[in-house]
Amino acid sequence: MTIPPPIQIFGIPDIPEVRPGDDLGALIWAAARPLPLVPGDILVVTQKVVSKAEDRLVDLRTITPSALAIDWAERWEKDPRQTEVVLRESRRIVRMDRGVLICETRHGFICANAGVDASNIPGEETVCLLPIDPDASARRIADVVSAWCGFAVPVIITDSFGRPWRNGITNIAIGVAGMAALVDYRGQPDTEGREMHVTVLAIADELASAAELAHGKVNRCPVAVIRGYAAPTGAGQGRDLVMDPTRDLFR
Amino acid sequence: MTIPPPIQIFGIPDIPEVRPGDDLGALIWAAARPLPLVPGDILVVTQKVVSKAEDRLVDLRTITPSALAIDWAERWEKDPRQTEVVLRESRRIVRMDRGVLICETRHGFICANAGVDASNIPGEETVCLLPIDPDASARRIADVVSAWCGFAVPVIITDSFGRPWRNGITNIAIGVAGMAALVDYRGQPDTEGREMHVTVLAIADELASAAELAHGKVNRCPVAVIRGYAAPTGAGQGRDLVMDPTRDLFR
Repeated sequence: MTIPPPIQIFGIPDIPEVRPGDDLGALIWAAARPLPLVPGDILVVTQKVVSKAEDRLVDLRTITPSALAIDWAERWEKDPRQTEVVLRESRRIVRMDRGVLICETRHGFICANAGVDASNIPGEETVCLLPIDPDASARRIADVVSAWCGFAVPVIITDSFGRPWRNGITNIAIGVAGMAALVDYRGQPDTEGREMHVTVLAIADELASAAELAHGKVNRCPVAVIRGYAAPTGAGQGRDLVMDPTRDLFR
Repeated sequence: MTIPPPIQIFGIPDIPEVRPGDDLGALIWAAARPLPLVPGDILVVTQKVVSKAEDRLVDLRTITPSALAIDWAERWEKDPRQTEVVLRESRRIVRMDRGVLICETRHGFICANAGVDASNIPGEETVCLLPIDPDASARRIADVVSAWCGFAVPVIITDSFGRPWRNGITNIAIGVAGMAALVDYRGQPDTEGREMHVTVLAIADELASAAELAHGKVNRCPVAVIRGYAAPTGAGQGRDLVMDPTRDLFR
């Protein structure tokens, strides 16, 4: 028997340095033109360029740290102003130990430093925050790219988070537009004809991890196109992936 | 500028039903022949076929449940014999609440039901356990396939685990052979020339999630080939991904 055609993951290398106010959808569409995009393609965009386009940059020289930020930063050799920004981006501190700040962001994401990051940002005194509403960010990019293409293009916005129990960070979905974020196989028969239990797949997170292979960490390749994978239909959101606190055994 | 060639993920559909004692490496090599495998390809194999080949199947009719298993199973409408198998596969119960058993397996993995699973297994009274040593399983498959191919083929063995704070399961790596499981970018400059901090990427987990797109949940496609991604060199192991308990803030 023949092997079916592969799923393909293209890294789109030619996104120019993104500046506040840029129309990121238009930049992405232009950079992907040599491909070009075809119906069924899924766009996966790293958070950093989205935050830059949305001016989610903070000049640390404008920040007055609180007593808690000063104390923590002194103990663990951090920048107290950056710590202050992390505290302001958090609605709950999940763990605060050994120099590590695990925060619940205002979106409900649980991650180190509330997603505040200084890497790949121009300017020594600037840090980058997560988008205010990553689902709205994804929707804006999807609308612009879909209008240029003449067909609907689903968009996932990603960030790299650590997780309990396992080493290393992985790319996950923080914003989704134009597709479902989860696929629910409950009630469907398995290969033996028995009903499958508790099988809800976090497909947007798996697509985010797959895209990371093409994004790379040091290459300037913030956009990937996944081709040949049928995105699950639905009006998914990044927040669908955030577990309801009342159901979470780990709060 | 042109777009670089994509990373490709092939699902290998033609693995026959695997039986205890089968040489899984030989079956995989034969099924992938129409591709064929080329140097640089990474094989990603789901745990279920590995466990079947290694006869990690348990006939529930041979199991006498303990008092704890009987009590729990009665309260939550579970099969007490299957609960007993879960307890036997665990070295620690992490959470036991609302019918959910989160266990630390003897390998150190933390997952629901210690990885014991009844789906996609022939026989109403049979459950499937994780491989005893998934790194050794990966090494065996890699050795057989590499010998047939005449070049080294890295192998990742995967399973689908839930995680705290986020909905849905994702595919992760439980066994690795012929490549590094983690990529450490610490000390490397970012795109702005600044040193990156705390950036260790769980690349084997991301490859596992990428492969899941081709494995599917209902298709009988337990093997995927990832092509065009330069696997990080090293003697990685699935257990590299398990966080040292003394460093884990979530124990």
